[in-house]
Amino acid sequence: MAASSSPHRTDAVIVGAGPVGLFAVFEFGMLGMRCHVVDSLDEAGGQCAALYPEKPIYDIPGYPVIAAKDLVSRVKEQAAPFQPVYHLGRHVESLSGSSDGAWIVESDDGARIEARAVVIAAGVGAFGPNRPPIAGIADYERDPVFPDVQYAVKRRDDFRGKRVVIAGGGDSAVDWAVSLAEVAAHIFVVHRGAKFRAAPAGIAALERLAGEGKVELVIPFQLDRLDGDGRHINAVIVRDLDGNERRLAVDVLLPFFGLAQSLGPISGWGLNVDRNLIAVDPATCATNRPGIYAIGDIASYAGKLKLILSGFAEAALAAHAAYGIVFPGQALHFEYSTIKGIPTLR
Amino acid sequence: MAASSSPHRTDAVIVGAGPVGLFAVFEFGMLGMRCHVVDSLDEAGGQCAALYPEKPIYDIPGYPVIAAKDLVSRVKEQAAPFQPVYHLGRHVESLSGSSDGAWIVESDDGARIEARAVVIAAGVGAFGPNRPPIAGIADYERDPVFPDVQYAVKRRDDFRGKRVVIAGGGDSAVDWAVSLAEVAAHIFVVHRGAKFRAAPAGIAALERLAGEGKVELVIPFQLDRLDGDGRHINAVIVRDLDGNERRLAVDVLLPFFGLAQSLGPISGWGLNVDRNLIAVDPATCATNRPGIYAIGDIASYAGKLKLILSGFAEAALAAHAAYGIVFPGQALHFEYSTIKGIPTLR
Repeated sequence: MAASSSPHRTDAVIVGAGPVGLFAVFEFGMLGMRCHVVDSLDEAGGQCAALYPEKPIYDIPGYPVIAAKDLVSRVKEQAAPFQPVYHLGRHVESLSGSSDGAWIVESDDGARIEARAVVIAAGVGAFGPNRPPIAGIADYERDPVFPDVQYAVKRRDDFRGKRVVIAGGGDSAVDWAVSLAEVAAHIFVVHRGAKFRAAPAGIAALERLAGEGKVELVIPFQLDRLDGDGRHINAVIVRDLDGNERRLAVDVLLPFFGLAQSLGPISGWGLNVDRNLIAVDPATCATNRPGIYAIGDIASYAGKLKLILSGFAEAALAAHAAYGIVFPGQALHFEYSTIKGIPTLR
Repeated sequence: MAASSSPHRTDAVIVGAGPVGLFAVFEFGMLGMRCHVVDSLDEAGGQCAALYPEKPIYDIPGYPVIAAKDLVSRVKEQAAPFQPVYHLGRHVESLSGSSDGAWIVESDDGARIEARAVVIAAGVGAFGPNRPPIAGIADYERDPVFPDVQYAVKRRDDFRGKRVVIAGGGDSAVDWAVSLAEVAAHIFVVHRGAKFRAAPAGIAALERLAGEGKVELVIPFQLDRLDGDGRHINAVIVRDLDGNERRLAVDVLLPFFGLAQSLGPISGWGLNVDRNLIAVDPATCATNRPGIYAIGDIASYAGKLKLILSGFAEAALAAHAAYGIVFPGQALHFEYSTIKGIPTLR
């Protein structure tokens, strides 16, 4: 698409379609502002949908417990009356100013979106799993149905009867080892250190399962190479520091080495950034550039808690702050939702 | 009860059992802190339960719509695993320091609660409706089943077939006139001004109903007196500025003249207070007195939005800030609820 194509025009561009970005659509909508939403993933929901859809979340107010994917779908439903336009599977690229003082955000397919407000709700940025340094590993990630190397558990039941290597020593490795032990045929946990860096309750559960023989701890070992045909693995070969090898005959490898976080092109937008976080005014979530806001895990200010709940509250702050920029000169009459209900957009 | 009776000991005293106070119990509980909760009302839920239990709320994340009373009951359920101790129907009175650096909050029944943290989540304070200045009006508020003068609609269906005077020109008057028009036999709306101070959509609905004869606007008139037997009214007599009177034969009067707000004894606790609001540090919700926090509508800081959602996020901030005061010297290991679930209290 030519860069000269006429841009989409809207009131706010939301970068990131995780729960906080989706709730920003709602909060902006409540104040009469329309939004376009850009996300690098193919579906809305951010990490909640992509990395831990079935994980229970306990600290969303009013939900004693809710699965991550259900939270996303409820918030998406809440945003729907405001008719957001989603640009999914798209990365944002450049940011530039339009002739009349609006911003133009361009995405990697050449689409341009013009808006007076830009809200960065990109979580940890465009994220991806850290790959272990094993030659050819990407080949084993490609099967569209059930790849032999995976970086997230989407449906626990897909692992029923499988022999699994889980690699890593953090919360994800520990928690999934415990969880998958209920369905998998056998689980090896490969960790190069003696100590897990995870919540004590999780470690205790893992050690109990190891004692019962339901999980086999392969410690201290590191992933060395894969034995396979370039599409399906036969075994994972691990090594300790003395060079001793073990061959673990399994069906699937789950490396949990954390997320590679990157702001990507946003780091070139002239914002005050420190270690992949964007500094904002906590009263408004405004960045150093007028009309550009950051909310959720990517926003940084004194006292910031990386809770979904905090991101939700920040979405409300950003919407109220952006109102005067989207509708210059119009006073905002503060109303409770109980009084006005859901407004209809112009 | 003698003031010298031995105090209850806990980690935090929450003043106010509205949704934000209840959620504070949850957030403190997630960090291993126990709470006592004091509220002047006889049931938990604050204004949500007492003043508008059936009103729909649209801006709670993850709930496209939820009735106020349902929100309260969900949050109360969420707090329940942490076994809060409720002191309902009690006003807080004095605040004093204990010998070992904790606070002692005393309530009007002489009970004393000792805790290192105090969280004021008192909304608009101990509140009550503004009564119109009509001699003897309180007599008509006393019927335990259906008083002829009421300041809130608890169950809309109780008004089915009734002739109603609604007095006032704000959102409550307008919204309830529109809502009760569906069930009441007749509705008069008495307002002394020509203009309503309410959301445009509500005013438009009211004027449409007036045009259809379903609501009768009595404007510009003021309440003057009641005609009745000291328990049941026969009519409400209204007057305009020229002294003209009208006699409105009705069953029930609903004056909506706002809430009388008062911090009550809290105003003597040495906190920085401005117009019934308590100034806090937005990073921690800490007041000027160490260990005392204010959250929700009663808290004031730059950019503060009076949203239930904001109060929820403030509860999380206060809990994290109070942790170091309740457990001095213990580092707080930040964890997501998805990882650790609900902790059990010691």
